[in-house]
Amino acid sequence: MTIRLGIVGYGGMGKWHEKNAPRVAGVEIVAICDIDPKKLKDISDSKYDVYLSAEEMFENAVINTVLLTVPNHLHKEMTIKAAKAGLNIIDEKPAALTVKEFDEMIAAVKENHVFFTVHQNRRWDRDFRIIKKLVDENQLGEVFTIESRLHTANGRIHEWHLYKKYGGGMMYDWGVHLIDQAMQMMKGAKPITIFADIKSIINDEVDDYFNLTLKFDNGITYHIELATYLLKYQPRWLAAGNRGTAYINSFACDGGIARTSELLDKLPAQIAETVAGPTRQFAPQPAGVLYEEPLPEVVTEWTDFYQNVVAAIEGKEEPLIKIAEVREVLRIMEAAVQSSETNQSVAL
Amino acid sequence: MTIRLGIVGYGGMGKWHEKNAPRVAGVEIVAICDIDPKKLKDISDSKYDVYLSAEEMFENAVINTVLLTVPNHLHKEMTIKAAKAGLNIIDEKPAALTVKEFDEMIAAVKENHVFFTVHQNRRWDRDFRIIKKLVDENQLGEVFTIESRLHTANGRIHEWHLYKKYGGGMMYDWGVHLIDQAMQMMKGAKPITIFADIKSIINDEVDDYFNLTLKFDNGITYHIELATYLLKYQPRWLAAGNRGTAYINSFACDGGIARTSELLDKLPAQIAETVAGPTRQFAPQPAGVLYEEPLPEVVTEWTDFYQNVVAAIEGKEEPLIKIAEVREVLRIMEAAVQSSETNQSVAL
Repeated sequence: MTIRLGIVGYGGMGKWHEKNAPRVAGVEIVAICDIDPKKLKDISDSKYDVYLSAEEMFENAVINTVLLTVPNHLHKEMTIKAAKAGLNIIDEKPAALTVKEFDEMIAAVKENHVFFTVHQNRRWDRDFRIIKKLVDENQLGEVFTIESRLHTANGRIHEWHLYKKYGGGMMYDWGVHLIDQAMQMMKGAKPITIFADIKSIINDEVDDYFNLTLKFDNGITYHIELATYLLKYQPRWLAAGNRGTAYINSFACDGGIARTSELLDKLPAQIAETVAGPTRQFAPQPAGVLYEEPLPEVVTEWTDFYQNVVAAIEGKEEPLIKIAEVREVLRIMEAAVQSSETNQSVAL
Repeated sequence: MTIRLGIVGYGGMGKWHEKNAPRVAGVEIVAICDIDPKKLKDISDSKYDVYLSAEEMFENAVINTVLLTVPNHLHKEMTIKAAKAGLNIIDEKPAALTVKEFDEMIAAVKENHVFFTVHQNRRWDRDFRIIKKLVDENQLGEVFTIESRLHTANGRIHEWHLYKKYGGGMMYDWGVHLIDQAMQMMKGAKPITIFADIKSIINDEVDDYFNLTLKFDNGITYHIELATYLLKYQPRWLAAGNRGTAYINSFACDGGIARTSELLDKLPAQIAETVAGPTRQFAPQPAGVLYEEPLPEVVTEWTDFYQNVVAAIEGKEEPLIKIAEVREVLRIMEAAVQSSETNQSVAL
């Protein structure tokens, strides 16, 4: 089966999919829709069918699948309309603004027996996959803390992301990715609790800073932080276990695994006095004790997403981005907002 | 008045005070006590009176003040005994293991009209004072997050700190300092809530890792982390505001203030589309936009502690380390333990 794709929303992400989706065999872009005729004017008529109305496209275009790259607040309405039109649906993230909205979407999808997934493309980020590989393969020993941080000094939030009514703000834009990554990294473990600090530093309406702490029942505490205006960037990743600490500085995957030649096991309390002194513990290590290993090579191919969508629609594969996973991330996002607003942790 | 000092506990900190306290005019070390005769054998008899029993020292030595550098679990008992003997008291930190213990100590001190303070020497750490100066003087604008972190790969905890029954572990050893610094840095603001993650990574009995989040009513969220076995050290300090981000890498005070030439004020949501694209926001800044300023010079003199003790005992100054402050830090430490054990935040 060929995915005959109609894209609704010809902004940044719509254009990105237009360019990248056809790299996968079995995906063909047939139609593009935007309510703004200016955005459509560069498309030559012969290339795709163009529409100014999604409803019209759903009704008339010879498509079997829609990609919804519309502002966040429109995902629910458009998804339900597409489901009723019998179309398979790929939503941009966040799939919905609330769990309640998402449940309505799931109901429509089930009722109309269409395929539904969400483009959680950050699962293919190489930095994320490197840390996940190290954790999965136990290469850091027993991991006790993971930090996933994203800092920029740019500050500016773009287009409709500036407005609350459109589902703007960085929690919806990036929080949904970073939490999704956390849940994938911790697969098999249950989140116990979340404590969140969500702020607007230089924006009027929407959040542009958040710091989330998720405790999991595997003993790992997972910290997420994003700031659009923090001028000294901290490492994108830090993952520490009792056998090593991995770090990655940026999306470019510059980093390493810090190891020690003086590996310590669980220390029984029988060890006698070694040495005293008020700062001895936090003095620098002697030269040669700490060393670094390179990060493992990881190859990620984003086109796996569309390949899986093709196979999943044909019933040959499980979808990689599962509805239950997307719903769980939305649930945690709601808990984060609740935690920040009440200054209390929220049990998950 | 001269402080005629008797030191109880001739371990690492006892020796440190022996060396440093007499640097201050008005402080004279008269007697030293330890239950272990081996520890006393290097002291020439003529230099100080030496005792194997604190009670004996309190009764017989010609002292007016005691310094208690005994294991943590003995602070309460010794403080009460010294108070009853009519001696002024300087306790090492943590002054007590619990607020309840501390309240008993305060009662004894009040009843016997003696002076009582605690050696929170980390208030004189230059790294702390530099960040405090920047925050106090509003040099970072509106601060939204402060991180106080202390990492080592050394791992080893020394002597009695390895044992729970002696009040061991890093919360008692360093947590009490880092929380005290937080409360000093945030002076005038109230802590609203704490969320804590306290772990034993390579120790059997006691904690050697903690991560605490304190939300204050001034809008600042203050993060504290200590790890004795985290192989890639993160900066000792990070403080971010809407006008700059300060960082200090280590006790050596290497760091700077990151600034931007593209200073952004509160952005109204009226800004029109600028540019789109999925990672544009987190792309590197163009060269020259971000720049660094040096950290301010701060001179700290630890001897201020003893000078103040002399002046406070004479009634000429308020004590720098106040009983109410010490009690508040103990209260927060208890809340931290409760938070970590219950996986819930604790309202303060």
